[in-house]
Amino acid sequence: MKLQIALDGGFDPSLAILRAVRPYIDIAEVGTPLIFQEGLSAVRRIRQAYPDLTLLADLKIMDAGKAEATLAFEAGADLVTLLGVTQDATVRGAVAAAERYDKQIVVDMMQVLDPVSRGRALLAMGCHYLCLHTAYDAQVAGVLPQARLRELREELPTAPLVIAGGIGLQTIDAVITLQPEIVVVGGAIAGATDPAGVARAIRERMSRA
Amino acid sequence: MKLQIALDGGFDPSLAILRAVRPYIDIAEVGTPLIFQEGLSAVRRIRQAYPDLTLLADLKIMDAGKAEATLAFEAGADLVTLLGVTQDATVRGAVAAAERYDKQIVVDMMQVLDPVSRGRALLAMGCHYLCLHTAYDAQVAGVLPQARLRELREELPTAPLVIAGGIGLQTIDAVITLQPEIVVVGGAIAGATDPAGVARAIRERMSRA
Repeated sequence: MKLQIALDGGFDPSLAILRAVRPYIDIAEVGTPLIFQEGLSAVRRIRQAYPDLTLLADLKIMDAGKAEATLAFEAGADLVTLLGVTQDATVRGAVAAAERYDKQIVVDMMQVLDPVSRGRALLAMGCHYLCLHTAYDAQVAGVLPQARLRELREELPTAPLVIAGGIGLQTIDAVITLQPEIVVVGGAIAGATDPAGVARAIRERMSRA
Repeated sequence: MKLQIALDGGFDPSLAILRAVRPYIDIAEVGTPLIFQEGLSAVRRIRQAYPDLTLLADLKIMDAGKAEATLAFEAGADLVTLLGVTQDATVRGAVAAAERYDKQIVVDMMQVLDPVSRGRALLAMGCHYLCLHTAYDAQVAGVLPQARLRELREELPTAPLVIAGGIGLQTIDAVITLQPEIVVVGGAIAGATDPAGVARAIRERMSRA
C-alpha cells in the first residue's frame, strides 16, 4: 500500500512540504491547482530535484487524451489522471500514450454515475488504477463516505484502487480496510503544523495494517 | 455574435497566431494544453500584451471551484470554463468567485447526459454561458453534430450558447443559424497556412448573418 502526498499549494511551499515528508511517502502528486499555477514545469522541477521519486500529474484529462497525457509524460510524470466521465476515445488516447512511454493512467472516478460498470470498462481499456475520489467541494471535515466506498470495493474486488479526498489520521484506518493500492493524503499533511509528523504517523498505521 | 480563437499550441506560436488574427476576433482562449504547458502565466503574459482583449482560461474546472476560478481571474482572465458534469458545490464556488471579480463562467457541456435540464440548472445557479462542445477526440473532420445541436438550441431557446469543436469555414454557416453568443474556432484558424485570412473569412460570414 503506497502513500501519495497531494501538493496543491504554490511551488515553493509544496517543495518544502515534499522535502519534509519524503522519507514517508511513495508518490508525489503535482495537484491540479499547482499545475494551473506553474504548468508542467512544476513536474519538471520536482523530477530534477527527485530523480527517483514516482510523480503523478493531476491533469484530470477530459479531452485530447493522447496529446495531454503525452505532455505529462514528457515532463517526467510516471502517472497522469483522467476523468472517468470522459468519452472512450479520450481514454484510449491517454492509454496509448501511457503504453508508448511505459507509464500509467489513474482514472478519477468523480461524478461517474455507474462506477462499477464504468470502472470495469476503464480497466478493460487499459487504465491502471481507479481513483475513488471524494471531491474537495463535497468533503465534510473528518467524514468519509465509508459505506459507499466499502460497497464499491465489494463490487470491484480485484480492481487496483486509489482512495483520495479528505483522508487524514481520523480516517486512515477505515481507508486501509478497503485495501487500496494507493492512499492519497493532501491537506491533512500539507496543512499540518508538523507535516513530517503526520506523514510518519499515517505511514506507521499503513505499515501495521 | 462573438468570435473566440482557441490557442492550444505552445506559447510563442500561439502569440504569433493571436497577433495575426487580432483584428478579427473578440475573445482569445488560453486552451487547456497551453495552460498545462505554461500555467496561468500564459494568461498573464497575453493580458500584458493585450490589456483590452477579452481572455478565457479553459481550465475545465471539476473540483475546488472557488479556488480554481479565483486563480484564473487573478491571472487576468475574464471568463473561465468549468465542466457541466461537476457537482453543484463546485459550480456554486466558481460562480461566487465570478461574482466577486465581476467575471464570468462558461460551462463546458461535454459528456453531460441531460444537457437541457442540467443546462437550465447551471444557468439558474448563476453560470453565464453553456458551451456545446464537440470534444476534440469525438470530432470527425468537417462534420458537426448538427441535428443534435439544433435540437438543444430548440429546447434551450433563450440560453446564452457557446458553440465549440470542429468549427471552420465548412461548418460556420450551420453554426451561425444556431444563434450562439460566441463561436469558438481553433485548429481551422491556428492550423491554417493563413490564419488571418481564415479568421477574416469566418468573421465576414458571421457579420453577414
